[in-house]
This record gives sequence, structure tokens and C-alpha cells, in this order.
Amino acid sequence: MTKATYYHAGCPVCVSAEEALLQHLSPNVKVDIIHLGEQPDRVAEAERVGVKSVPALVIDGNVLHINFGAPIEALK
Amino acid sequence: MTKATYYHAGCPVCVSAEEALLQHLSPNVKVDIIHLGEQPDRVAEAERVGVKSVPALVIDGNVLHINFGAPIEALK
Repeated sequence: MTKATYYHAGCPVCVSAEEALLQHLSPNVKVDIIHLGEQPDRVAEAERVGVKSVPALVIDGNVLHINFGAPIEALK
Repeated sequence: MTKATYYHAGCPVCVSAEEALLQHLSPNVKVDIIHLGEQPDRVAEAERVGVKSVPALVIDGNVLHINFGAPIEALK
């Protein structure tokens, strides 16, 4: 089982990327989906792991910024 | 079976993203990996489907730019 986190902000780019990618991940990958607009207490955590913009998928400690919806600064 | 194409240019960001992501895609996804530096005849195709920078994963017609290695213009 691989744990991953998808950070987003509900933006159109975020939703598109989520729909395009997450359905194609292996069933072995468990993805937590975090809406930083609704869970602002998770913004610091996202920054700490290296998220600079949303949407971003963090998997095995690797931060994959996928397209560009909004900078993390806009979510503070 | 879902067909996808991973466009890259051999750059460190490209290699990291490939290693981080492709192994976690579903076994149902067949990914063609295209090194645009070695296959410059594919650059026009990449642009046509909407690739603006590498690395990028095109899946079901959706273009996912993953982090940023190089602009497509640099590969022409």
C-alpha cells in the first residue's frame, strides 16, 4: 500500500487534474484528498512537504505539482 | 486499457517525475514514454495535444504538466 495526498483548492484546474489522474492510479495507492480552502489548518503541512501550488500530488515523499491552479500563498 | 504518453526531455525533473509517478499508475494504463530530445519529430505532435512544457503526461486527452523541467520551445 502506498499512501499519497492530493492537495487542491476546489479550482477548475484542481478538479480537472483530479478527475484525469486519480482514477488511473494503482488500486494499491491510497489517496487522501485535502481541500486546502476548506482545511486551512493543513496548509502549513502542505508547505512543509514542499507543495508550492495546487493541485499537487504527494506520493512517496515526492511532490508532483500538476498544472497550475493557485500558489500556496493564496491559500493562507 | 487506457493509453497515455509521457513526454520528457531527459532532464532531472523529468526523470524524478517519471520515477515518482509512472510506477503508481494502474496496470490498465499503457504508457508510451517519448524523449523529445531524442525524437524531435514528435515535438509537433506534443504541442498539438497541448503540451507546453516537459515533463507532461497525456492521458485520455488530458494534459498534465508535472512540475517543470523545460518549455516545449526549448526542444524545437
